[in-house]
Amino acid sequence: MSLVIVGSIALDSVTTPYGEVDKVLGGSAIYASMASKHFCKTHVVGVVGEDFSKNYICMLQENDICCKGIKFVPGKTFYWKGAYNDMNRAETLDTQLNVFADFDPIIPTDYRKCEYLFLGNIDPELQLRVLNQMDNTKITACDTMNFWIDCQREKLLEVISKIDILFINDDEAKMLTGEHNIFGAAEAAGKLGPQLIVIKRGEYGSMAVTEDFIFFAPVYPVKNVIDPTGAGDSFAGGFMGYLATQKNYNKTSIKNAMIYGTVMASFNIESFSLNKLIEIDLKDIEARKESVINSIQL
Amino acid sequence: MSLVIVGSIALDSVTTPYGEVDKVLGGSAIYASMASKHFCKTHVVGVVGEDFSKNYICMLQENDICCKGIKFVPGKTFYWKGAYNDMNRAETLDTQLNVFADFDPIIPTDYRKCEYLFLGNIDPELQLRVLNQMDNTKITACDTMNFWIDCQREKLLEVISKIDILFINDDEAKMLTGEHNIFGAAEAAGKLGPQLIVIKRGEYGSMAVTEDFIFFAPVYPVKNVIDPTGAGDSFAGGFMGYLATQKNYNKTSIKNAMIYGTVMASFNIESFSLNKLIEIDLKDIEARKESVINSIQL
Repeated sequence: MSLVIVGSIALDSVTTPYGEVDKVLGGSAIYASMASKHFCKTHVVGVVGEDFSKNYICMLQENDICCKGIKFVPGKTFYWKGAYNDMNRAETLDTQLNVFADFDPIIPTDYRKCEYLFLGNIDPELQLRVLNQMDNTKITACDTMNFWIDCQREKLLEVISKIDILFINDDEAKMLTGEHNIFGAAEAAGKLGPQLIVIKRGEYGSMAVTEDFIFFAPVYPVKNVIDPTGAGDSFAGGFMGYLATQKNYNKTSIKNAMIYGTVMASFNIESFSLNKLIEIDLKDIEARKESVINSIQL
Repeated sequence: MSLVIVGSIALDSVTTPYGEVDKVLGGSAIYASMASKHFCKTHVVGVVGEDFSKNYICMLQENDICCKGIKFVPGKTFYWKGAYNDMNRAETLDTQLNVFADFDPIIPTDYRKCEYLFLGNIDPELQLRVLNQMDNTKITACDTMNFWIDCQREKLLEVISKIDILFINDDEAKMLTGEHNIFGAAEAAGKLGPQLIVIKRGEYGSMAVTEDFIFFAPVYPVKNVIDPTGAGDSFAGGFMGYLATQKNYNKTSIKNAMIYGTVMASFNIESFSLNKLIEIDLKDIEARKESVINSIQL
């Protein structure tokens, strides 16, 4: 089965205690795709400007990611500049939407039959437009952020009512539902529509909450976190990519997807940009998966 | 096997979003004892003033906790007043050391042969004095806090070099070791002496770190947290109490102890003071243990 990923494609300038990089490849769609591509055929949809290097497209294609959905338009690529003093929280220093401001995601015809869809963190209005273009989805998922919860609440609730899986972090889940307790928030979020709520908790791991069960995934203990940018997106990409390989969508596949998401995020934070995700293979992923499972097995 | 617990015995006034209580029974030794007593014979050592109700002693004795080590002295009992707006962080409004200021823990002769010892969060100087009075310990553990790391560092390091298990929270582990990464901090803490470092992470669970393995325990998903006071102590009490019932001190017993600690803390936070820990029995504990295990099993 194959996966469509829609989201931002960015050039990022990032400073962490371990160094800095200037205008490197990033964005939710890219991080998620470079994680999911290890598991399933991945199709990416996004927009870039004239300054976007063709080498990036080549790199994505070499990684077997279909780039037909990436549109080149006049202008500059979405730019984000951030710094991490505390590795758990990015400080945004600059955001230039550029071509992303007028992004209107058009799903290529041959993507529309794909069964799996991940909507990265973009305007819920656009997430809805994508949902309406898909013909045959089995599992749809979306991510979001505080900005949309605040400013596009109604549209966001409409998206959430239509998808199967919501990826969201602790604070955003509380903000979305008005609940102060994270377990109350997860339960309340489930009542908005999705069968599955995946709460992302940064260095504390993640949890999957459905009506029937709760599952806690730890983190892989990375001692040298170089750059947390894209951790949530690579988590979601690994999760959705693995799920797309599974015949059944059930407790077991969800738990395993949580572990694969954890593993992909752990690789991602070990380097700037996509450097680590490019370099690893399935053997590395499986080895780390075993290690993560061992750290929660009695 | 039996367990000696040394620590504070307090009268607490606590305000949380769910209510307030005035001068109720608390303190690290009490919370830990009321958790461990479900598993093993527990002996408590501490000091109280003339205002300490004999009814509390009766309650502890009815719970099969040996109180011979509780000394009544002229003056008032240690008093702590705190408030939780954020359930993850207590704001201290008042601390009156009272009789606790001159606490000099004398271990009753028949306690000195006990194989298990938990040193609650008190002055490392006193923790050392207790260690020196014990004749036959198999496993010793201590808890501590930022204040002692700052102001009694040398003595604290001496304690840590002599014990088997260190209970400590995230921030304190980083502060103790100077490491910014929690996994680096846990490893560095292990090099100070203890074979086992147990990192307490509040609502995110806990982790056990040894040279050979790492184990993550989740939390039990309590939706109505009434009062977090004593969560860390009831965790340590449950952990040590369970361990004291086990022939072997190994990976399996440590992992199970982590789960029992988790369970005891989860009950504790469901009420003010000891109200919930008093009311539960082993059947409740085992049921919740199963639930916690299910939430991390694939």
